Formats: sequence, structure tokens, C-alpha cells
Amino acid sequence: MDIIKVGFVGLGLMGGSLSIALKKQSKDYYFIGLDHNTLHCSQALELGLVDEIASSLETLKACDIIFLSIPVDGIIAVAQQFGTLPPNCTVIDLGSTKEKISLSIPKDIRHNFVAAHPMTGTEKFGPHAAIDDLYTDKVVVLCDIEKSGTHQEKIAKELFKNIGMNIVCMDAKEHDRHAAFISHMPHALSYALANSVMEQEASKSIIALAGGGFKDMSRIAKSSPNMWEDIFRQNKSNVLEAINSFQSELKKCQKMVENEEWHTLNQWMQDANRLHDILD
Amino acid sequence: MDIIKVGFVGLGLMGGSLSIALKKQSKDYYFIGLDHNTLHCSQALELGLVDEIASSLETLKACDIIFLSIPVDGIIAVAQQFGTLPPNCTVIDLGSTKEKISLSIPKDIRHNFVAAHPMTGTEKFGPHAAIDDLYTDKVVVLCDIEKSGTHQEKIAKELFKNIGMNIVCMDAKEHDRHAAFISHMPHALSYALANSVMEQEASKSIIALAGGGFKDMSRIAKSSPNMWEDIFRQNKSNVLEAINSFQSELKKCQKMVENEEWHTLNQWMQDANRLHDILD
Repeated sequence: MDIIKVGFVGLGLMGGSLSIALKKQSKDYYFIGLDHNTLHCSQALELGLVDEIASSLETLKACDIIFLSIPVDGIIAVAQQFGTLPPNCTVIDLGSTKEKISLSIPKDIRHNFVAAHPMTGTEKFGPHAAIDDLYTDKVVVLCDIEKSGTHQEKIAKELFKNIGMNIVCMDAKEHDRHAAFISHMPHALSYALANSVMEQEASKSIIALAGGGFKDMSRIAKSSPNMWEDIFRQNKSNVLEAINSFQSELKKCQKMVENEEWHTLNQWMQDANRLHDILD
Repeated sequence: MDIIKVGFVGLGLMGGSLSIALKKQSKDYYFIGLDHNTLHCSQALELGLVDEIASSLETLKACDIIFLSIPVDGIIAVAQQFGTLPPNCTVIDLGSTKEKISLSIPKDIRHNFVAAHPMTGTEKFGPHAAIDDLYTDKVVVLCDIEKSGTHQEKIAKELFKNIGMNIVCMDAKEHDRHAAFISHMPHALSYALANSVMEQEASKSIIALAGGGFKDMSRIAKSSPNMWEDIFRQNKSNVLEAINSFQSELKKCQKMVENEEWHTLNQWMQDANRLHDILD
């Protein structure tokens, strides 16, 4: 079989872990990386995440598949910089927002693109954050797939299936609303939780007592501010709606505690328990 | 060595896991359980968490050590029911709130009691939730320890040390404030998050997309409503203060997104990142 050339724009957690997953699945891949962070480039080479570093975006155009594994504003910028692309080149962006990206891709190369959001990650970033099995048994959402070329759709679906992902298709607008509730708003909560605890006088002694609940709730407060600034910007209206919806639930809880409506509070917590009948 | 008789009032996650931990550490313990839930009694026997089931609280008074591993309102009720206790009997309550419990113990048996809060747990409950290593390398807070007898203090400290716990002492009032921030308020957030997502029209399809972040943030929304109703009641004022503090942080975030103050938002997230310099 011929070698398949795979390019990565962005050599962090998502790109690096994808390289590990693809390498495990087939020996036919050759990986070329591009990252404006030169330290990340040398680390990715050292870790064997890529076989070579490209000198420019232009060089990557010779790849069969190009992953855009960078913050979402960067994805929009790179999409503009491509100019033209060979007809069979498949560009897969891994951004956590999809509507603005999907709409911003120049018409002439829209069929080259597949807008994907793998619903996985950790709070860590950079090439050293890359891990085995980040994608295994996880969901990947493909958005506005009818705008991708038939070839590109086939390539992307096969690739994600081969690394053990479950494919869900939906339109980008719907995706962004769902992602706001399931991912973006919870990140805002985690950042707010971390800051509210650290504002306390005895924050160090409070944190010394942290059990599993607090550690879980505050884990994603360690996520990259640069990545999340872009996400909150691109998904502003949905994120605000999700925060509002959360706030009104928390206010309910606050009122019930204030007014000592213990029976109603118990029922409200029982309602929340039901999430896990769906999730587990 | 003589057999040490250990009683458990409450045969759920905390009591059951403690039995496992103690059994691992020494063969000199004999475990006697009491639970108003007869199913939990038979399950605890079957699982080998206890050697026998007591018929009444009175029977348990013959134990060297008695753990109260029940919801916090139950702890207060049981403390009233003891009447008298042998001078060397050690009663250790494992409640998540401490001030009301510490104050409610009848004077005559106050020296028998050690008010402890192990900063560990899972969202599961009942004897089948009991797990190995729940206590290993975790913090246990001992409150108002000067009110416990010298013998009782020694017994409790040795026991928690022997199962691998790190002991922190503080007064009950301080504990309750810290616990509100590090544990009780985060539980309120998790319940509110679960309910706000489930209120959405497409809740099932949203939840189908859940990644690790959402799963972590919503895990403790599965916790026992009966247990948490008691905690919110007993720690009402601190919990309300912690919720207020969280709400003002979340409002900051909301305003920054609304007003597109991206640079300030980025800085705010960087502030939150610092939590993990303290926590990790």
C-alpha cells in the first residue's frame, strides 16, 4: 500500500494524540507537522509524533490528509491562507466550535474540508500532553457533512472509525448549541469555581482539604486560556444562554436552602440523579 | 492481642469501606453493624463488611469503637439516644458537617466522641458502594479535638493513621466554612448543572455527546439526596455564602463574554489555572 501523508497544523494534545492513534492502527502513515511554537515542533519530533516538520503551510498541501488541531480562531485563519488545494486533499478541523468555522471556509475549497469535533480531551496541552487512547470509544461529531466532498467524507469517516470513534452527524448550528451546554458552559463553571475558592482568605488551607469531588469539578479549570478564549468568542450567544440556564437552576437551589424548603430541595436533587440513568 | 470490637451505625459507602480498610490492616477487629435498612444489613453480612448485625444501639455500647456513618441529622439523633457510654468507648462520627454535631453531643458523653470528616467519598451509596482504598492517602479532619478524651483522641488518631490517612485538626466552625467551599457548594453546582442540561429540549442528544469534562462535572450530581439535604440544612449559612461567592465569579465571566472583553477573560482563566499550582 502507498504511504499516506498526514499533515498536522498544531502539535498539541489533540494532534499529538491523533498521531499516536493513527500510528497504532497502520504503518502506512507519514506525519508532517507545522506549529508556530518551535519548542513544540522539536518536542513533537523527539516524541515521534511527527516524522518531519514542514517549513510552511504551502508544503503541507502535498499531504493526503491535513488536520487542523489548533485553537478555533486559528482554524479560520488557516482556512483563508490555503488559497487552492488539490481536489482530493482532505482537511479535517478538530475545533470545539463549528458554525463560524463551517461558514468561513472559502467556497472553492469547501469540499476539501470536514468539520469535526471529537468529544474528548484533557485539561493538559502541548505535545507532552499527547496520550494513547484519547480517541478510543469517544464520539466525534461531523458537522454540515453535506458540504464536504464525497471523497473527503469517506476518508474522514473511515479514519475516525478506524481509531475506534463513534460518528455522529449534525448541522453546525445544532452542534454549537449542544456543545455550549455539554462542554463550554461547564468549563466556565470550573474556572469560576477555581477563582471563587482562591478568593477566600484561607484558600491554601481550603484546597489542602480537597477530595475527589472538588478535584473533578476543578480539573478543567486548568485548561488553556488561549484555546478557551477563542471558543467563548466563537460560541458567544450559545454560551451565554447555557450560563443563564445554569444560573437559574443554581438560584432555585439557593432559594430552597434560604427558605429551608428541604423537601423540594431533596426532590430537585433526585431530578439531578436522573442524569445518570441517561449517562451511565 | 485482644479482639477489638468495632460497631458501625450505617452500612453504606463510608462505613463499608472503613471496614474493608481496617480488615486489611489488622485481623484483630470484630465488626458489628446496625442499619435501619434491613436490605443493607443482609448485604453487608453477605459482602463480609460486618461479622454480625446488632439488634439495637444498646448492644453496640459494648464495642471499643463505634463509627457513626450515617447522614448528619442521623448522627445528631443517635448521639441523643446513647444515654450513657462506658468511659473508654470511642464514638467517631464521619459526618460532612461538624459544628452542629459537635455542639449537640450531650455533655456527659462528649469525651467519648471524636468529630471526624474524611475528605473522601464517591457519588455511590449503600454497602455495594464500599471500595478498597477509599481512605488511603486522603485527609481526615478532626474537629474540636480538645473536647474529646485523651484516650479517644489517641484511638482515633492511631486508627486513621493506620489506614493511611493524613490527619488535620481544626475547630468545627472553621471546618464547616472550608467544607462549604471545597465540597458542599461544588455539589450544589453539579446538581444544578445536571438539571440545567436535562431541562433542554434535546437533552438526550446533548448528553450523548458528553466528554470527560462534563462527566467529571456532573458525577457528584448522582450523590444521595437524603445525605445532601441534611448537609445543606446543617451548613446552611456557609453554603449560601459559598454559592454567593461562586455566583459573583460566574457573573464576572458572563459579563466579560457579553461585553467581549476577551483579554480580561483570558486573564481570569489564567488566574483559575493557578489553582493547580496549589492542588497538583
